[in-house]
Amino acid sequence: MQHWYVVVSVLVIAVLVANYVQLQHRLHRCLHETVPRRDQRNLSVAVLVKEQGSSVWCRGSDHTSRLCRFTNLCYLPQHDAFTFFHHPKGTVIRGVPIDRFDPALLDMSTVANHSGQYFNYADVLAMTAEQLLGASTRLVGGTSLIFRRFHPDNLMHVLHDDLLPLYDTLRMITRRGDADRTTYDVQLVMSGGREPGEFQRLYDMFSTHKPIYLSPLHGTAICFADAYVGLSKDTRWYDYGFHKTQGPIKGHEVTAEHVRPAAEFLKIRLDVVALGDKEAVILSRRHNRLIVNEAELSVELAAMLNVRVRTLSLEETSLEEIIGRLSRAAVVVGMHGSLLALAVFLPPGAVLVELFPYAVNPDHYTPYRTLVNLPGMAVTYRAWRNMDPTRNIAHPSAPPELGGISHLDPDEQDRILHSPEVPLHLCCSDPEWLFRIYQDTVVDIPAVLALTRDAVDQRHVFPSRSQPQLFPTEVRQLVCDQSDEAGLSVSWAPPWNVDFLPATYLKYEVWIQEDGSDDYTAWILFRTSHRFVEGLKSNTPYLIWVRCLTTDEMPGPFNKAALRCRTKQFDTQS
Amino acid sequence: MQHWYVVVSVLVIAVLVANYVQLQHRLHRCLHETVPRRDQRNLSVAVLVKEQGSSVWCRGSDHTSRLCRFTNLCYLPQHDAFTFFHHPKGTVIRGVPIDRFDPALLDMSTVANHSGQYFNYADVLAMTAEQLLGASTRLVGGTSLIFRRFHPDNLMHVLHDDLLPLYDTLRMITRRGDADRTTYDVQLVMSGGREPGEFQRLYDMFSTHKPIYLSPLHGTAICFADAYVGLSKDTRWYDYGFHKTQGPIKGHEVTAEHVRPAAEFLKIRLDVVALGDKEAVILSRRHNRLIVNEAELSVELAAMLNVRVRTLSLEETSLEEIIGRLSRAAVVVGMHGSLLALAVFLPPGAVLVELFPYAVNPDHYTPYRTLVNLPGMAVTYRAWRNMDPTRNIAHPSAPPELGGISHLDPDEQDRILHSPEVPLHLCCSDPEWLFRIYQDTVVDIPAVLALTRDAVDQRHVFPSRSQPQLFPTEVRQLVCDQSDEAGLSVSWAPPWNVDFLPATYLKYEVWIQEDGSDDYTAWILFRTSHRFVEGLKSNTPYLIWVRCLTTDEMPGPFNKAALRCRTKQFDTQS
Repeated sequence: MQHWYVVVSVLVIAVLVANYVQLQHRLHRCLHETVPRRDQRNLSVAVLVKEQGSSVWCRGSDHTSRLCRFTNLCYLPQHDAFTFFHHPKGTVIRGVPIDRFDPALLDMSTVANHSGQYFNYADVLAMTAEQLLGASTRLVGGTSLIFRRFHPDNLMHVLHDDLLPLYDTLRMITRRGDADRTTYDVQLVMSGGREPGEFQRLYDMFSTHKPIYLSPLHGTAICFADAYVGLSKDTRWYDYGFHKTQGPIKGHEVTAEHVRPAAEFLKIRLDVVALGDKEAVILSRRHNRLIVNEAELSVELAAMLNVRVRTLSLEETSLEEIIGRLSRAAVVVGMHGSLLALAVFLPPGAVLVELFPYAVNPDHYTPYRTLVNLPGMAVTYRAWRNMDPTRNIAHPSAPPELGGISHLDPDEQDRILHSPEVPLHLCCSDPEWLFRIYQDTVVDIPAVLALTRDAVDQRHVFPSRSQPQLFPTEVRQLVCDQSDEAGLSVSWAPPWNVDFLPATYLKYEVWIQEDGSDDYTAWILFRTSHRFVEGLKSNTPYLIWVRCLTTDEMPGPFNKAALRCRTKQFDTQS
Repeated sequence: MQHWYVVVSVLVIAVLVANYVQLQHRLHRCLHETVPRRDQRNLSVAVLVKEQGSSVWCRGSDHTSRLCRFTNLCYLPQHDAFTFFHHPKGTVIRGVPIDRFDPALLDMSTVANHSGQYFNYADVLAMTAEQLLGASTRLVGGTSLIFRRFHPDNLMHVLHDDLLPLYDTLRMITRRGDADRTTYDVQLVMSGGREPGEFQRLYDMFSTHKPIYLSPLHGTAICFADAYVGLSKDTRWYDYGFHKTQGPIKGHEVTAEHVRPAAEFLKIRLDVVALGDKEAVILSRRHNRLIVNEAELSVELAAMLNVRVRTLSLEETSLEEIIGRLSRAAVVVGMHGSLLALAVFLPPGAVLVELFPYAVNPDHYTPYRTLVNLPGMAVTYRAWRNMDPTRNIAHPSAPPELGGISHLDPDEQDRILHSPEVPLHLCCSDPEWLFRIYQDTVVDIPAVLALTRDAVDQRHVFPSRSQPQLFPTEVRQLVCDQSDEAGLSVSWAPPWNVDFLPATYLKYEVWIQEDGSDDYTAWILFRTSHRFVEGLKSNTPYLIWVRCLTTDEMPGPFNKAALRCRTKQFDTQS
């Protein structure tokens, strides 16, 4: 009997262990892999695509506002083409316009309508998939986000064109607000063939997966089971001036809410340690566009503000340390340049002083001014420009991309040298602009200090952090009192949700219109009832609408159905 | 030692079993529940909403085209209000316009701009969640789809306004094409307070979950972790005439591809068995709008077509059987009415003959004509109208909603009785329209048979099933031949993808523009090279663009960068 027991117990344990291991495997697959289960039949990618085809759902009225989500979109490096496999039954296409080549289906970077950054796909029949997708084709399961970095070696472009839009798009894809800052389980796919750049680790912070870089003529075909293409443009505030003079994007609705959550996310993911406490920071350039008297500026600034002044440059300090100091800084000073994009990390209450070299008008170059002036940023901005050519050091013999003009016609060189201000121009290589912006400057320290002092003193007038607008709903129990009194006695109850909004004074707007007429009278009240007499006729039907407004002037909706009341016969004596 | 072994083995087995059970439980949760794991800390719904807040992402330029996706949206029956909980850090709002009450955030049914069907939400602060959400608040995890059925007791409205849009929207949400017809794991939520209707089982077919019906003043609060609100309008072809006379939706792009996949899905889910083979079906009404001589029509139709004729009504036959017979029918005849919406189930090659009572003009009432005439439906349509008042049976004393006119002014009754055709009118209760459409008809059988015969004979002229448009991409290797010959010798290779499209003749369109001029000449070629001479000048730079067209006239894109070539000096002798 003992033998029997041993044998049985060993068998039972063996079976339990085997089942446990298998279950563990299934659980791991469920938690971590999102390729549809049928694909675990070991189909080749080509057969899967042949059987299912590609599908696409797009939303957006034109290519600059359109975003699309694809199923089974494949990139073929041998043709540098995103390829869409049409299956007679499996393919669904929604929201793709008939003129998708005029000029494109959508913008693949966030710079609107840039002809070098368009996205489109090539049509093929799904039945040809095995001819196009070799045995080594890779299938990326889960959700991917395919986009194009605009200019990945320039920090302003990285933040403004790529990272802030990336965060906004990832939140939309995963529907995660700020409360949960863990990395997104979305595969980032960089299109466009450019290598990872100097700031690549910033992109890496957004995903649990290492990014995929698509490159023409390089590597094997790659198919994406579920790919969003394109990024949200909602966070962009600046137009670089490809089609018209650079400046803030007309009608943009960007606020600090589009900027700071992404900045906070980056700080957490980069493990940035906040450094210093209300220090001043000079953002310094080491190679060109120098502040010649930077050391002296630093000393004088420290003396005036009575704080530590840190002079930080990317060449000598890590990005994480710069961000860490900016996140607690009271004052930042720097030449116009991409470093100032790090103002996204400034805390509310900070001051930014931007310096411009000779002949450059600060009102024409406002990416950083616009940024810190966004509603809710609560950063005070001042600009200083060098008006004194004797404190200016130009470099006419530099290479053209660093502002040299010696390659131009002598007449043109002469014109530029005598021009007191760079005229308006388009992006990006206007020689006069490059010549002037790469000049070095001996800054007028007293003037800069005065600006800084003034900005610091002005700080307390900022409104509180911008809040989203909260509206009352409709008023309730809107009725006429059908008593014998003359006039219209109207009463109502406040909207139900005002008890659950920030405390505010309520007022009510009442519209009264004679039934059948187009004219109406409008009244503002602070009470929830009133007897209207003025201007009303006896024995006449009137239509009444009421809406609630908060002291922020946020109007709620009127009652959907007009309240219809009839006035009684008035006494002929007053 | 035996005791020791027994004890140990029992313990080991017990531990294994316990772990196995727990693992099984986790696997089940992973497979079936999608509430974020943190919620399994046993938080109350109110606390979860208080801590996270609601979020919303909308896309669409106005309320008739907008669709939104909410996180933590709650319905409060005591206020009949969808409620949005604003959290200072957790809430994200994108795509919500400032004027979301003018008139609404979006349409909750698919009928555009119907003021009884608008969707909006009420703002409250997330910190008040525990005051508004009681202990019995329900949390719906996973993905939900909240919408409003427009008129759930009328089969045309059910199919056109609800079910086809539902299928389109579910495919978009889940990104499933036709290849996989299993039910969607999306929770359907019916807003608007109406009870499940006669056709409710059709809605039930779309989801693994039983639908939730939201009803004001009824039940407890309910919060949705992830809710889409609104349905796609892409499948709608008919405007019912609330704002202007009814008719096809102007500019609609609906094809059989928006209709038949949904119909196929329903047939599978309803377990419809295809019945009959190329039979004729008379769709019959039993209570009003009768075909008085229906039996005779049936006999004559059978004799003429030499097929079985089935007379089917919803009152006497199951919907599944009717669908089953329609799916194989060759000919369908019926009075204008919601039953004809079942034409979505007709196979290509079928014939639909629609009958109209006296004084009703078929050109003014075309939901079914438009449906079967959609590109790709391949159904032949004919309309017959009763021109003979002696073969007409009117019911002036019926209740008003069934066309009675005895409640109207005698003058108005008289006018209607003598009116030879219902004038154009708006939806939905025009008394003259109701009076006429509810008349019974002794149909002119020879005329109907002649129409039917003609339609059956005409069937073969239909084009094949509408295909999505497939485009060639850019031509490749576009170059000028820089030889000494006069003119421009241009050559290129075909686009790479044409080998993977249906066989077609290719042609090429070439645009030649003198560099610096606005004029250009255009050429069509069937070859991939040509020497252009006519109209060109010597020693002049030209810009060249080439695009490929298929015989369907589908033009691919031009080359992005113009090809720039200079003509040589031509000989002065010809």
